[in-house]
Amino acid sequence: MADKFPYNRKKRLFKKAEQTELSIDLLASAIQSGDRKSLAQGITLVESKAVHHRKKASQLVQQLLPGTGNSIRIGITGVPGAGKSTWIETFGLKLAEEGHKIAVLAIDPSSSLSGGSILGDKTRMEELSHHANVFIRPTPTAGTLGGVHRMTRETMLLCEASGYDVILIETVGVGQSESMVRGMVDFFLLLALTGGGDELQGMKKGILELVDAILINKADGDNISKAKKAKSEYRQLLHFLQPATKGWTTSAYTCSAHTGEGIEEAWMLIKTFVQKTKENGVFDSRRSSQALDWMNQMVIDRLFDDFMHHPGRKEELADLKSRVLNGSLSPTEAVEMLFSP
Amino acid sequence: MADKFPYNRKKRLFKKAEQTELSIDLLASAIQSGDRKSLAQGITLVESKAVHHRKKASQLVQQLLPGTGNSIRIGITGVPGAGKSTWIETFGLKLAEEGHKIAVLAIDPSSSLSGGSILGDKTRMEELSHHANVFIRPTPTAGTLGGVHRMTRETMLLCEASGYDVILIETVGVGQSESMVRGMVDFFLLLALTGGGDELQGMKKGILELVDAILINKADGDNISKAKKAKSEYRQLLHFLQPATKGWTTSAYTCSAHTGEGIEEAWMLIKTFVQKTKENGVFDSRRSSQALDWMNQMVIDRLFDDFMHHPGRKEELADLKSRVLNGSLSPTEAVEMLFSP
Repeated sequence: MADKFPYNRKKRLFKKAEQTELSIDLLASAIQSGDRKSLAQGITLVESKAVHHRKKASQLVQQLLPGTGNSIRIGITGVPGAGKSTWIETFGLKLAEEGHKIAVLAIDPSSSLSGGSILGDKTRMEELSHHANVFIRPTPTAGTLGGVHRMTRETMLLCEASGYDVILIETVGVGQSESMVRGMVDFFLLLALTGGGDELQGMKKGILELVDAILINKADGDNISKAKKAKSEYRQLLHFLQPATKGWTTSAYTCSAHTGEGIEEAWMLIKTFVQKTKENGVFDSRRSSQALDWMNQMVIDRLFDDFMHHPGRKEELADLKSRVLNGSLSPTEAVEMLFSP
Repeated sequence: MADKFPYNRKKRLFKKAEQTELSIDLLASAIQSGDRKSLAQGITLVESKAVHHRKKASQLVQQLLPGTGNSIRIGITGVPGAGKSTWIETFGLKLAEEGHKIAVLAIDPSSSLSGGSILGDKTRMEELSHHANVFIRPTPTAGTLGGVHRMTRETMLLCEASGYDVILIETVGVGQSESMVRGMVDFFLLLALTGGGDELQGMKKGILELVDAILINKADGDNISKAKKAKSEYRQLLHFLQPATKGWTTSAYTCSAHTGEGIEEAWMLIKTFVQKTKENGVFDSRRSSQALDWMNQMVIDRLFDDFMHHPGRKEELADLKSRVLNGSLSPTEAVEMLFSP
């Protein structure tokens, strides 16, 4: 399909998209037809911070909305070194060979902990990125968490509208992005090593209660027995914790992205999860509450942003905060002062 | 001190407090002098929803602020049946006998899970409630989480200004109030039983990473060996999780509120915690960030409330939400529509 629109035409299309309503229609159709370059352009529009782009992007998403939602959305997290890129490459290639269309979106690629720039990520997934059924896109690092959230979600919708039926969202496993990813995927996977407690120290608190499965990666060669031991440790631990998804038991498994061992089983597990949660209604109710939570968060972000943009507000707030911190002003009184005319 | 102001005089004082600036001064002095009925009146003012009371309450808190902050703030959580009331009674009486002044504040007393009304709580803590050094006050159940948060924090400040040097905040261990309590105390304690994983299933996710100690209660009689086993299970589990407080190792211990075994040790543990966190700066930096977080949350609540009070907003929002839910509107577009003039 990539041959359908030669590159120059797409460039013109995007130029036009900035000017007329009609061109959003064209871009939308091209995305729906599965054209990769148009999809990339649509995502660039979604990522743009220019106000007139925001409006167009919103129109584009709105127009593509009916064709979205038909994918399995999978989040993948793990400490740096857990082998996320290699795992995604092995897993993604397997699915692509079976005829699935895979979109890989990476969050916080520039994190100092991720050990790789955007280019680095792409290099690590070289074979995958050249497959006709695979689309790889890192989310830009700039901007607020709210901004990254919106861009990633809308990028996901665009990919779905373009026919991608498996979306993989990779994140580095530290900080707030874990909750954000949990808030946009159906299935959340933790790639772990044999480090156990030491390994988890660096991760987000409560990560084990956010995920639907733990895969102990690198279970190959001399490492197999250690991986099996880690698996049973994690299973014991999970007995004490609450599952992330109602009606589903989070458990631990071993795999090796290097040998391919356990990769097929991981895909079976995810398919079982989807089937089970669709049957008991959890799949749909989660998607609904994800959409509403996101909407609420956008409302709050917008209100707070608008509030902070009043002239002198930043200075006023900084002053009130310092008085709260030195104990001369109660937080309640500070808020009263902020809102008094 | 309770004899200093006869009841009728206090009643007049409170009446006056509604009318003149001066009476807030009087109420503040009476609270500072340790008068219990005045403290109770101050708290009633803080809990009032009437707009003119809110302003007075804010003034009162502001006036008492210099005398606050000198207590140890302890949160206590656990499933219903973990023996929180009995534990607080035993622990509180011990400290009261040593000359400490103890304030006990209970959050969500009416929760169906707490197994007791306000009166029920008071009955269960009967001996404690009659001690001259002890002040017990349940937080009213009505209102939003934000409202309960503000009332509990301001009640705590009033108690501190009145000379109470140990504040115990009890919560039932489910839902959002756990994070709220963690956001206002120095030390957070989980009272557990020997149920392990089954027991934790009913609690807030990640509760083990919110608390500074786990006390296995009811370690007496035939239950001692089971309690010891639970203790070592929890300790193993904690090895995998992250401590709630930087520089402090959350661990598990046994105790019996019935026999008094382990109660002295719990108090020693809390004192060690306070000393250690004061030395490494965590105590003060936590208090500072708690104040700022609270202030930020109040700003957000206020903005959202104001926004929701526009005429027709609720209906508009409900309509947009249902369109988001049926897939005909993207959340981003819905938010755009909410904010368009």
